[in-house]
Amino acid sequence: MKNKKILLLLGPNLNMVGVREKIIYGTESADNIKEQIISYAYNIGLDVTIFQSNWEGALIDKIHESVDDFEGIIINAGALTHYSYALRDAIASVRLPFIEVHMSNIYSREEFRHKSVIADVCVGQISGFGKNSYFLSLNAMKELIKL
Amino acid sequence: MKNKKILLLLGPNLNMVGVREKIIYGTESADNIKEQIISYAYNIGLDVTIFQSNWEGALIDKIHESVDDFEGIIINAGALTHYSYALRDAIASVRLPFIEVHMSNIYSREEFRHKSVIADVCVGQISGFGKNSYFLSLNAMKELIKL
Amino acid sequence: MKNKKILLLLGPNLNMVGVREKIIYGTESADNIKEQIISYAYNIGLDVTIFQSNWEGALIDKIHESVDDFEGIIINAGALTHYSYALRDAIASVRLPFIEVHMSNIYSREEFRHKSVIADVCVGQISGFGKNSYFLSLNAMKELIKL
Amino acid sequence: MKNKKILLLLGPNLNMVGVREKIIYGTESADNIKEQIISYAYNIGLDVTIFQSNWEGALIDKIHESVDDFEGIIINAGALTHYSYALRDAIASVRLPFIEVHMSNIYSREEFRHKSVIADVCVGQISGFGKNSYFLSLNAMKELIKL
Amino acid sequence: MKNKKILLLLGPNLNMVGVREKIIYGTESADNIKEQIISYAYNIGLDVTIFQSNWEGALIDKIHESVDDFEGIIINAGALTHYSYALRDAIASVRLPFIEVHMSNIYSREEFRHKSVIADVCVGQISGFGKNSYFLSLNAMKELIKL
Amino acid sequence: MKNKKILLLLGPNLNMVGVREKIIYGTESADNIKEQIISYAYNIGLDVTIFQSNWEGALIDKIHESVDDFEGIIINAGALTHYSYALRDAIASVRLPFIEVHMSNIYSREEFRHKSVIADVCVGQISGFGKNSYFLSLNAMKELIKL
Amino acid sequence: MKNKKILLLLGPNLNMVGVREKIIYGTESADNIKEQIISYAYNIGLDVTIFQSNWEGALIDKIHESVDDFEGIIINAGALTHYSYALRDAIASVRLPFIEVHMSNIYSREEFRHKSVIADVCVGQISGFGKNSYFLSLNAMKELIKL
Amino acid sequence: MKNKKILLLLGPNLNMVGVREKIIYGTESADNIKEQIISYAYNIGLDVTIFQSNWEGALIDKIHESVDDFEGIIINAGALTHYSYALRDAIASVRLPFIEVHMSNIYSREEFRHKSVIADVCVGQISGFGKNSYFLSLNAMKELIKL
Amino acid sequence: MKNKKILLLLGPNLNMVGVREKIIYGTESADNIKEQIISYAYNIGLDVTIFQSNWEGALIDKIHESVDDFEGIIINAGALTHYSYALRDAIASVRLPFIEVHMSNIYSREEFRHKSVIADVCVGQISGFGKNSYFLSLNAMKELIKL
Amino acid sequence: MKNKKILLLLGPNLNMVGVREKIIYGTESADNIKEQIISYAYNIGLDVTIFQSNWEGALIDKIHESVDDFEGIIINAGALTHYSYALRDAIASVRLPFIEVHMSNIYSREEFRHKSVIADVCVGQISGFGKNSYFLSLNAMKELIKL
Amino acid sequence: MKNKKILLLLGPNLNMVGVREKIIYGTESADNIKEQIISYAYNIGLDVTIFQSNWEGALIDKIHESVDDFEGIIINAGALTHYSYALRDAIASVRLPFIEVHMSNIYSREEFRHKSVIADVCVGQISGFGKNSYFLSLNAMKELIKL
Amino acid sequence: MKNKKILLLLGPNLNMVGVREKIIYGTESADNIKEQIISYAYNIGLDVTIFQSNWEGALIDKIHESVDDFEGIIINAGALTHYSYALRDAIASVRLPFIEVHMSNIYSREEFRHKSVIADVCVGQISGFGKNSYFLSLNAMKELIKL
Repeated sequence: MKNKKILLLLGPNLNMVGVREKIIYGTESADNIKEQIISYAYNIGLDVTIFQSNWEGALIDKIHESVDDFEGIIINAGALTHYSYALRDAIASVRLPFIEVHMSNIYSREEFRHKSVIADVCVGQISGFGKNSYFLSLNAMKELIKL
Repeated sequence: MKNKKILLLLGPNLNMVGVREKIIYGTESADNIKEQIISYAYNIGLDVTIFQSNWEGALIDKIHESVDDFEGIIINAGALTHYSYALRDAIASVRLPFIEVHMSNIYSREEFRHKSVIADVCVGQISGFGKNSYFLSLNAMKELIKL
Repeated sequence: MKNKKILLLLGPNLNMVGVREKIIYGTESADNIKEQIISYAYNIGLDVTIFQSNWEGALIDKIHESVDDFEGIIINAGALTHYSYALRDAIASVRLPFIEVHMSNIYSREEFRHKSVIADVCVGQISGFGKNSYFLSLNAMKELIKL
Repeated sequence: MKNKKILLLLGPNLNMVGVREKIIYGTESADNIKEQIISYAYNIGLDVTIFQSNWEGALIDKIHESVDDFEGIIINAGALTHYSYALRDAIASVRLPFIEVHMSNIYSREEFRHKSVIADVCVGQISGFGKNSYFLSLNAMKELIKL
Repeated sequence: MKNKKILLLLGPNLNMVGVREKIIYGTESADNIKEQIISYAYNIGLDVTIFQSNWEGALIDKIHESVDDFEGIIINAGALTHYSYALRDAIASVRLPFIEVHMSNIYSREEFRHKSVIADVCVGQISGFGKNSYFLSLNAMKELIKL
Repeated sequence: MKNKKILLLLGPNLNMVGVREKIIYGTESADNIKEQIISYAYNIGLDVTIFQSNWEGALIDKIHESVDDFEGIIINAGALTHYSYALRDAIASVRLPFIEVHMSNIYSREEFRHKSVIADVCVGQISGFGKNSYFLSLNAMKELIKL
Repeated sequence: MKNKKILLLLGPNLNMVGVREKIIYGTESADNIKEQIISYAYNIGLDVTIFQSNWEGALIDKIHESVDDFEGIIINAGALTHYSYALRDAIASVRLPFIEVHMSNIYSREEFRHKSVIADVCVGQISGFGKNSYFLSLNAMKELIKL
Repeated sequence: MKNKKILLLLGPNLNMVGVREKIIYGTESADNIKEQIISYAYNIGLDVTIFQSNWEGALIDKIHESVDDFEGIIINAGALTHYSYALRDAIASVRLPFIEVHMSNIYSREEFRHKSVIADVCVGQISGFGKNSYFLSLNAMKELIKL
Repeated sequence: MKNKKILLLLGPNLNMVGVREKIIYGTESADNIKEQIISYAYNIGLDVTIFQSNWEGALIDKIHESVDDFEGIIINAGALTHYSYALRDAIASVRLPFIEVHMSNIYSREEFRHKSVIADVCVGQISGFGKNSYFLSLNAMKELIKL
Repeated sequence: MKNKKILLLLGPNLNMVGVREKIIYGTESADNIKEQIISYAYNIGLDVTIFQSNWEGALIDKIHESVDDFEGIIINAGALTHYSYALRDAIASVRLPFIEVHMSNIYSREEFRHKSVIADVCVGQISGFGKNSYFLSLNAMKELIKL
Repeated sequence: MKNKKILLLLGPNLNMVGVREKIIYGTESADNIKEQIISYAYNIGLDVTIFQSNWEGALIDKIHESVDDFEGIIINAGALTHYSYALRDAIASVRLPFIEVHMSNIYSREEFRHKSVIADVCVGQISGFGKNSYFLSLNAMKELIKL
Repeated sequence: MKNKKILLLLGPNLNMVGVREKIIYGTESADNIKEQIISYAYNIGLDVTIFQSNWEGALIDKIHESVDDFEGIIINAGALTHYSYALRDAIASVRLPFIEVHMSNIYSREEFRHKSVIADVCVGQISGFGKNSYFLSLNAMKELIKL
């Protein structure tokens, strides 16, 4: 049986993980983590594609195009989480389950990070577990698309 | 006499109209509605060009380039309506009349849609009449550029 | 075939249009504009009755009495737009489509004019096109009652 | 030389002065105070007409009709002071000087009385001097219309 | 012994009960409910007069005139509950006990209905029991005027 | 026919009624009032059990256990009214009608008492009539459970 | 009979009247206006002393020292009006009547000028009549100290 | 090797899961879900103890006592999540990792549920996945205590 | 002469002092500090009883029971300080002087700690002096009950 | 051994204590209280200098000059407490411990007195005990400078 | 010695400087100003590269790529200044000094321009000096990278 | 040619620079920096006078007196920046260009420092560059007065 296909969307500046703000995000490089995510997904029977962009428009386009290619989308929208209503509408415009994920605990950082404008159009949220946030969201997605 | 040229700018996710959220936007496809808009415009003597993008930057660029090509711009900025001050500055930076248009009644939806950051730099606003909002705005524009 | 009957409700101070604040409302007198509205309506097959009052109670009574006489109501509630929840309840209490209309762009004026308490119980809103706001709303109503 | 004509507009519940809330308004009856106002005005060369109503619409109508009959309007709008934007627009719609007056000190009473929505369209405000507030406003008006 | 006289004041749109918004107010007509109220009052020894108006001014006038005719006032001010400080001052201006009553539970409806500007000048509030709210308030008033 | 069983839940500090704050709550002792409530209920065909606790957890437990024992719950949650979302969830978690009751008029006291977090999950609210608030709520409940 | 002694306190920048912001304050110099005030006061039987300072502390000291020398204080606190709670406490600390006065209409200027922190400890307020505000406040004070 | 011991703390009303609000929490009973949690934990090498209480104090006591018995605490504080700063201080007072978990998506429910006062003293948050939220949090905890 | 009896009430988590957050509360254990408090009290002629609980209900019960046993209550309510209106009402319900005390400076910690809902029903507040806050409050209480 | 030197800084209007607002501050004169403070301090081994000024600048200068002369500063800043960020910066600019003190309970007075802008740069706060607030703060300071 | 390399980032609509809003930005064209900037920089020993884009994503990409090519970045983010938390995170993600610059005084324009979301991650801010703002920021940067 | 005369105004606590808070302001003494400023100014053709005061009134007086003596004023108002509307009015009352300057980045410090009440009446603002902020502002002023 073929693995189910999942999209992992990464928003602005998430390509910089491991380069700076190591106290918050740890020291592993973005590429290193990406490989672990793909490998982890494969082991639990998911075929994950990772798409990172610093461009809001690119993320929205990608969501629109994903309807036929994927069965669910895991999204770490970076700082767009906190103001991009356009991204929110994109999420609401496709019939796929979304999981919101954050490496850091957004509730123990700056005030502006305490509010997510995409949270209520996603199925659920996982935040604060570093790279493990991604692994947990893969497990969560696996359950969701089983239904 | 040649028809006057008008630009209809469509923002993020408006390519998805008819695909989902049919309760809000109806079941006609985006392409179908576009054709009707072009045809309606032609009948009242306007030559309308439609430009849709999910990219804020593309919309701003298009506005800058429009000064010499068009006599007025009708804009449905989608969710950018509610936070894109950059789009607002773009509107204020060119000497063309703008009309803000929405298919749905933005005042009977989520709280965040009740505030438009572009409203005060447009001439007027038409919202809540479904695709007819576009036809009405074409009529409104026809009057504006007659002056 | 007989023209369909429409009510145009005008709230406080709209009898003063043309007398003062000419920068905002233009120099044509209220009566002059009324005649143009009736004439314009007639030409598109609508029989419009105009009722102006500076009294909130009179506007509410009129709405209640309109159910059997009219097929739709266009309302420019003047400053009542911004605080009259009683007017709002009146609109919600009758089974007729309402269109909210304003001659000026209420979003480019004083802060208190940015919020309409009747907007979410109307079908849609047209604002900012001077007297043309009325003509556009007649067109919009024509479509609504055709359904 | 004939006395100049002034209108004194009194809003809701000001007919009840002297009947209750004597701590705030004193014990003289409304009629008694009215007579003193007329008499005081006469002595400084003003012919004052007093119009009291509990009806917002009646006050607005009266303002509209006053343009040709009076040279200035003194207004104690009662509680309408704090929310009647329709009254505010009426004041702004006629070319007469307005003076806002209150018998009590509205800033030492309930929170909702601290904000006047008509203050910025009047020339000035006099509050807190009991019936003397009216006498002072007559003096103030006399100066204004001398200009 | 003669029945004590009570006034039941009904504000804007309460004449429309039973006509629409049946989910909120039930399907009995306003007239039908009025008869039941009068009958219920009679049975507990109260002579109730019902006065409904969509006009704020009429309600205020009625309150002023009631001092000598009634021993207490039950008031359902409709939407005026939420902004009419003039009505509030009227209540405070007469020496009669007031009971605020609502058929619906105003705290489970729109945000703007959660705040009553007349609540603190009434003796108490009864809301959410449909027409029974009126019967309960009659019982409450009977106790109040016994004191 | 057996009387229907009703629970009257009393929250923190309501055992102190009559001991202090006599201006607000009157001088009758809590026990005295309880007896009158039981007697009053009996006379209208209700069998009322009174449970008072200063412990939020005890009140929540009691609500959970009441499903099979009672047909309705009258609740005066004391100050928990204003912040206990846990109590609110308890009310929402059982299939019984709740009536919110207060002896004092909570809207004429401190600002923090103006907001009830349980109001929208109760059927209705009765406040301001002293011990009579309880009698009225018994009458209201009798009607509710008759349905 | 000797004239009663009154203090006129002028706060920060009021020495600059007539030098700049002539649109708001007119073109007469501060000294010129002072002379007119003294003369006007004399004519109505008041002996006015004018004290201007840009120093909050100096104004407070002056208030403290005034108890035995003056029978009333008229105060234009300039911008201190809007934040100096120390000045407010000074006003509240002496047993003299205070009148708050402003040449301009503070309610039609910047938002921060709409709130006066001294208003509720003064007897009343007069604003918006230019230099006439001072004359009116002298008249008002004359009445106050007659009591 | 012995399984590591974990505490799962459940707050107010979580004993009612499956009894009501099935749309939000599903139809499985609380006991049924508890068994699955214990079983799931066992399979991934964790020995989970479940403690549910409707009493804030009991939850705080339990946290204090847990230091020596457990290596980590998973907490679904129910509605206490939104106001119990005492619970928050309890979490901060012991040297154990906490994971905040919710079955429902708290960001798509009532406004008051959007703010968690314990979020910033927990390591991370998992919400919206029904009973799977618990399984995911067990996985997350397993990683945390491995460190 | 016998020592006067005083109650020292300690709220949630204050049993954990000395165990953690040593930067804020110091390193002495709760028991150690308690002994010093009792001893200090004894030396200034006070007989102090210390009652600590993590249960809001237990604290309220204790306050109610204290009327006959104690002459004053010193309270460090822990985090309940910031939201427990029930505790506040308990304080207001007994005729004893209360002193609010905090070891840490609550104004230099998290925003939510800046507001005390019990402050205005206590005589005074002492905060920021570590364990010395308790000694100072004992001195303050000694003065209060001497009156 | 010589007594340690302490400065007691008193802000605006505190020279007026005993003259007015006796309900709040008592009837003893400011001078009388000062003597008691000096005497009390002497008895516990402190040499206290009292400096009162109604001038913010004088208080700031005094703080700057105190570094070498005193070992600690007790400050009752009067109304400057609530807005003088300059005073706050002065406190933060010198290396001495500060104690904030108030005679009245600032939390049971006007809203504006509930916020102290200097609280978080002082060691602690003592308020509400009348003149005893000063004695307590002297004791508190004695402890602080012993360290 | 080679000139140090600096990047000048210009955000949305800054290509339109000189075309419109000449009152705010002056009449020199964007290209003209760019040349002056390059020339000015050269004269003080800096090699400046100017990059303008209306695309948020392009600006973020550019920042990421600049680490190895430049020693500092001067940024005029246009309207993105006020909401682009993604841009903010980009600034925080690279180890270069940033200077925020604005030609106009953003504090004397619309309310929404008073808040910069990037200000606290830049070293400093220069605004209000027209094109000279750029020259000043070049001088400021020269100092910063000398360190 | 004679150097143009410039005034550098320094507000409260700026005499303490270098004494404390060295992390924010650096370790150079205030006097040391002053000398560098005078020297720097001299080199670019400006004759700068430095006036520091902790007294708001002194700063206002100085501004008034400066009209004839200086051609421009550079102001670092210290904490007065955030609340002194009197200082703001002083700036607006003289016909000289003002530049607002801060050594620290006020936007990365406490919340209360993010708002400047003088910003909109100054030409521009320079903040965050330590002592270099002064040098940059001298350059900026040189340009301004050249016009």
